[in-house]
Amino acid sequence: MSHIKILGIPGSIRKNSYNKLLLKATLNLLPQGVEMEIFEDISQIPPFNQDEENNPPQVVKDLKRKIRESDAILFATPEYNRSIPGVLKNAIDWASRPYMDNSFNGKVAAIMSASIGMLGGALAHYHLKQILSFLNVNVVTGPEVFVSFAQQKFDENGNLVDENSKKFISQLLTNLVDYVKMVKSKQVVSL
Amino acid sequence: MSHIKILGIPGSIRKNSYNKLLLKATLNLLPQGVEMEIFEDISQIPPFNQDEENNPPQVVKDLKRKIRESDAILFATPEYNRSIPGVLKNAIDWASRPYMDNSFNGKVAAIMSASIGMLGGALAHYHLKQILSFLNVNVVTGPEVFVSFAQQKFDENGNLVDENSKKFISQLLTNLVDYVKMVKSKQVVSL
Amino acid sequence: MSHIKILGIPGSIRKNSYNKLLLKATLNLLPQGVEMEIFEDISQIPPFNQDEENNPPQVVKDLKRKIRESDAILFATPEYNRSIPGVLKNAIDWASRPYMDNSFNGKVAAIMSASIGMLGGALAHYHLKQILSFLNVNVVTGPEVFVSFAQQKFDENGNLVDENSKKFISQLLTNLVDYVKMVKSKQVVSL
Amino acid sequence: MSHIKILGIPGSIRKNSYNKLLLKATLNLLPQGVEMEIFEDISQIPPFNQDEENNPPQVVKDLKRKIRESDAILFATPEYNRSIPGVLKNAIDWASRPYMDNSFNGKVAAIMSASIGMLGGALAHYHLKQILSFLNVNVVTGPEVFVSFAQQKFDENGNLVDENSKKFISQLLTNLVDYVKMVKSKQVVSL
Repeated sequence: MSHIKILGIPGSIRKNSYNKLLLKATLNLLPQGVEMEIFEDISQIPPFNQDEENNPPQVVKDLKRKIRESDAILFATPEYNRSIPGVLKNAIDWASRPYMDNSFNGKVAAIMSASIGMLGGALAHYHLKQILSFLNVNVVTGPEVFVSFAQQKFDENGNLVDENSKKFISQLLTNLVDYVKMVKSKQVVSL
Repeated sequence: MSHIKILGIPGSIRKNSYNKLLLKATLNLLPQGVEMEIFEDISQIPPFNQDEENNPPQVVKDLKRKIRESDAILFATPEYNRSIPGVLKNAIDWASRPYMDNSFNGKVAAIMSASIGMLGGALAHYHLKQILSFLNVNVVTGPEVFVSFAQQKFDENGNLVDENSKKFISQLLTNLVDYVKMVKSKQVVSL
Repeated sequence: MSHIKILGIPGSIRKNSYNKLLLKATLNLLPQGVEMEIFEDISQIPPFNQDEENNPPQVVKDLKRKIRESDAILFATPEYNRSIPGVLKNAIDWASRPYMDNSFNGKVAAIMSASIGMLGGALAHYHLKQILSFLNVNVVTGPEVFVSFAQQKFDENGNLVDENSKKFISQLLTNLVDYVKMVKSKQVVSL
Repeated sequence: MSHIKILGIPGSIRKNSYNKLLLKATLNLLPQGVEMEIFEDISQIPPFNQDEENNPPQVVKDLKRKIRESDAILFATPEYNRSIPGVLKNAIDWASRPYMDNSFNGKVAAIMSASIGMLGGALAHYHLKQILSFLNVNVVTGPEVFVSFAQQKFDENGNLVDENSKKFISQLLTNLVDYVKMVKSKQVVSL
């Protein structure tokens, strides 16, 4: 059977972002037969201008191609001001346009969030779900991976050391992969 | 009595954005004693990087200064993917940081939205309200100015020609100005 | 192959509710092999009291049993005050409790909304999606069936006469049934 | 100067609800010149039926009268299924209808939430803000009082013993009272 490919998209572009680290930690938790790439170039995406939607910059073309080549998208996002970062929303806006060329169309996704506060990004989570639902993305319902007080969950080398978080991420990955397999088997049956 | 200053912030950066036109139309509907400036440079704001929050680019310094010098903020935003555009969220993220230097703190705001669809931006509206509430911005509750089917509401020169929309915008301005006066009179009393 | 069973749950309990009528109209649009029942007794459900969650009234037992016996849930809800009606949320609260006995767990759902205003219930829609996602319900992403200006879409006998609405409902049903088949075929494969 | 009257509305009707206890704890934290009543009868409110909106039951008449006689409303609500309880939404639906007789119109409100989980009701909080904004209620923006792990914050007699929570509630009350005074002084000036 073919490999399953996941594209990880971080919501923050700061150098030592906990959400980037969360995606890196995920690389060590992948089930067999699953590969994952992290899209680090989100920082290179310029402000979305609808006048340019038919002529996107190369970095957006790359993002859209990688989304299309993936079976699933894994978002790891902080919460900024009770929503997702503008940087992440801007990347999604580009990748969803023009209307007939929404690269997310029909994809499966999962969401994780890490923040230094108590809420662990919960409100960002649900804004992102609203956005993805509109883009015809099926978002795995759970478990909800909210990594609160993130500064306590990683060691000085940026490794995730919180066993509970690892357990939840592993379960989320299992559910994501099961979902992808369900969609793929249906596509085979449809043929 | 001193003038009241409003800063208009558009949510879209495309050239003929209906939301920019909505802000321009508002210039003709201002009550006496009220002046308004539109912040066109939102397109120049780079992706927010928290590592740079203490050293923002000049365009962000300008935005924060203009917000602080204003009595009220008037947002006019499209709805992108059932939320506000990433471009607008990114500008808000910059202007709200660092934490102790949130330029929106204590401001009054109003929201308008225009879109070519039926919803008129309603879901963007409510995501923006959630964001602003967290930033300690008092948002005028109504009327809700949702300009749906925006392409039918402007003439070929970009002038708002829909009388109903004008009426609602005027009412929103009245409510916004009343709110500002209430806040100002309280500040005087406090002295 | 076995029939597919849908349970329709209206969000309003008034006699001539447009959302009840929407569910009734759906009965005429069902694909072959699909049967649907409408749960009219939502009006009989008392206020949820967590102290009673292990000992629910008979009407709640009936609701939970019908949800469990169904392959999919079809909600038709008005928007009250920019969210779903309390009556509908209360029914969901009962049916989801106690925690280990959430009758919605693993179900598939679709949402329609009708309202007399322009928004067609869009904000209720997205609050409901947030709620269902938490309850481990996979909600079909589209099409978004927002029946705006509902009073113009039904005849004096309460029949849906708007062809566009019928078309969207049919498409939603097709997508819902496809989703159920996908889930069912996976369950067979898993065996 | 006249007293300020606050009406406390709990979102849960179970006997030992943490949110009822939160309102009770608030009684001991009131600033001078402020009185507060708790509306316990929310449990007696039947399901809202729009057919009856012009002829509400006595308990709803009482609720609407008490809201009107108050200067401010203080909600204390749990989070049920990532939104506010149906019981609370149902009470709000009744109290806001019919359209021309919305008893919340123009009121000031504040929100607290308590839950046994980590989020402390944050998502309920923001759904409630969306609802209240539509009803022309000005909601105090902060501080956000999220009492997480509520079972650890009260003693065996139901007294709030967490000093941090008390501090935040006191600050919220101060902000709520300041807001009411601002609105009242404006009304006097308007005369």
